[in-house]
Amino acid sequence: MGLRFRPVETTFYDQFTQAAQHLVVGAGLLAEMLAEGADEEAIAQRMRDAEHQADETTHAIVKLVNSTFVTPFDREDIYSLASGLDDVMDMMDEVVDMVLLYEPKMLPAALLDQVELLQRCAELTAAVMPRLRSMQSLGEYWIEINRLENAGDRNHRRIIANLFSGEFKAMEVLKLKDIAEALEGSIDAFEKVANIVEQIAVKES
Amino acid sequence: MGLRFRPVETTFYDQFTQAAQHLVVGAGLLAEMLAEGADEEAIAQRMRDAEHQADETTHAIVKLVNSTFVTPFDREDIYSLASGLDDVMDMMDEVVDMVLLYEPKMLPAALLDQVELLQRCAELTAAVMPRLRSMQSLGEYWIEINRLENAGDRNHRRIIANLFSGEFKAMEVLKLKDIAEALEGSIDAFEKVANIVEQIAVKES
Amino acid sequence: MGLRFRPVETTFYDQFTQAAQHLVVGAGLLAEMLAEGADEEAIAQRMRDAEHQADETTHAIVKLVNSTFVTPFDREDIYSLASGLDDVMDMMDEVVDMVLLYEPKMLPAALLDQVELLQRCAELTAAVMPRLRSMQSLGEYWIEINRLENAGDRNHRRIIANLFSGEFKAMEVLKLKDIAEALEGSIDAFEKVANIVEQIAVKES
Repeated sequence: MGLRFRPVETTFYDQFTQAAQHLVVGAGLLAEMLAEGADEEAIAQRMRDAEHQADETTHAIVKLVNSTFVTPFDREDIYSLASGLDDVMDMMDEVVDMVLLYEPKMLPAALLDQVELLQRCAELTAAVMPRLRSMQSLGEYWIEINRLENAGDRNHRRIIANLFSGEFKAMEVLKLKDIAEALEGSIDAFEKVANIVEQIAVKES
Repeated sequence: MGLRFRPVETTFYDQFTQAAQHLVVGAGLLAEMLAEGADEEAIAQRMRDAEHQADETTHAIVKLVNSTFVTPFDREDIYSLASGLDDVMDMMDEVVDMVLLYEPKMLPAALLDQVELLQRCAELTAAVMPRLRSMQSLGEYWIEINRLENAGDRNHRRIIANLFSGEFKAMEVLKLKDIAEALEGSIDAFEKVANIVEQIAVKES
Repeated sequence: MGLRFRPVETTFYDQFTQAAQHLVVGAGLLAEMLAEGADEEAIAQRMRDAEHQADETTHAIVKLVNSTFVTPFDREDIYSLASGLDDVMDMMDEVVDMVLLYEPKMLPAALLDQVELLQRCAELTAAVMPRLRSMQSLGEYWIEINRLENAGDRNHRRIIANLFSGEFKAMEVLKLKDIAEALEGSIDAFEKVANIVEQIAVKES
């Protein structure tokens, strides 16, 4: 039986898949954090761990780019996809931190809808990463991420209008508005990843 | 009489011009929305229609890039100019939505100055698009957009300082600050378009 | 003794170094502005002057790119590094303006920690610019800027949580939150510069 070599190219796709899987974990922790009766300290700690692991994957990708002669697509694009995925994790981690630090009195149910959208975005992103190899069937992914981002945008505007309705105290509005904006920012960050994937596909086609 | 073919290149410039003309329409609707006694529901509906048309133009450009072998300038730059123009429309649409949903008690006159700047930016952008073909006289456009953006920035700081003066209730400050920031974001988005045009010109020169 | 010609390439590195030195001056003025008993009008005027000088350096770089045949690295990257440095100055100038215009009743001490981080970022950035020539020892710079940005991020979250604690009046929270966010945005802008430098190094390697 001979040795089997794992080509460098495969490693890139595996690492991007791993990076996106960290986002599935992160979005799941965010859902736990916003659930009734959550053990916030414990979940925030697990989120910090997940964020560190995501950082390590990002660094591994950057290191691999720097040490590889022929990359599956442009170095700059690999770099920008890796950063794009990392940005999503940072933003979701920020939401968890805000919930922990701000201690809002209650969390409007519409925020949970945003977290559901985030979980769906994370799953789609994790599913598309292995397909970067063939560059096939990327269209459905973009369309679906864009649809989710539009839905998130509409939810967000309604959430903010509701916060401004006079029902909440000013300080509570400020806390919840920050949390809502970080959630929407996380969905946007998934859309940015989809845009990077789209640009890579346009270039390579 | 022979057939006349319309070269693909011409189609690109026409589509960018069309994209920018949607922004002239959008900025006009924004001005109507902020005018005294506006029929807000009706204007918001017209804005949604304008935003959909702008989306269609963006998609037409992306489709054309993907199906064209020789493009007038780099694929990535076409893509980023199309997205840049689309972003302006999304932000102006957001302002209209905010005015509709937040129901602010009054709109400070200084916000109308920002909308005037936006209308001027839209006209300049629509006028420059056909000039992308020759790459001539772009300098005046950048300088003027930058001047307008600086003026918008100064207005914006004064608007916010005025909102913080103690004259308004906290909830009203929050609503108007959001609207003011979205207006300033729209002006910034025009400047980003100007920066993309500048980068294309630098590359092609 | 013969004439010595200064190669164009050297001029680029000198101008980037100059651009970064403007940021050292700007960060210093910011520290003065937030100090007890500051002459705010006078400092704001000096900041405006520093910002104008930074603009001139940016324009000189863009002009040099446009008139030079062989550039030390890609035109687009020179352009984006110049804009990145300029963005930092604009954001620090904005903080000074906010302090002048909003007239906050007091400035929490934690904001001074953010300004110290900014001063450290500015010094590191000024020190790295001449090293762009050899592309050597850039790693430490990225790592340190990232570390500072992470520290700034943690400070920022604590600053905001403190503003939301109920200790401050709503209008004071709004003013200080804006100032805190502009400070954090300035630190982020330094990180963006570091990312641009990293991308240039990846490309050129």
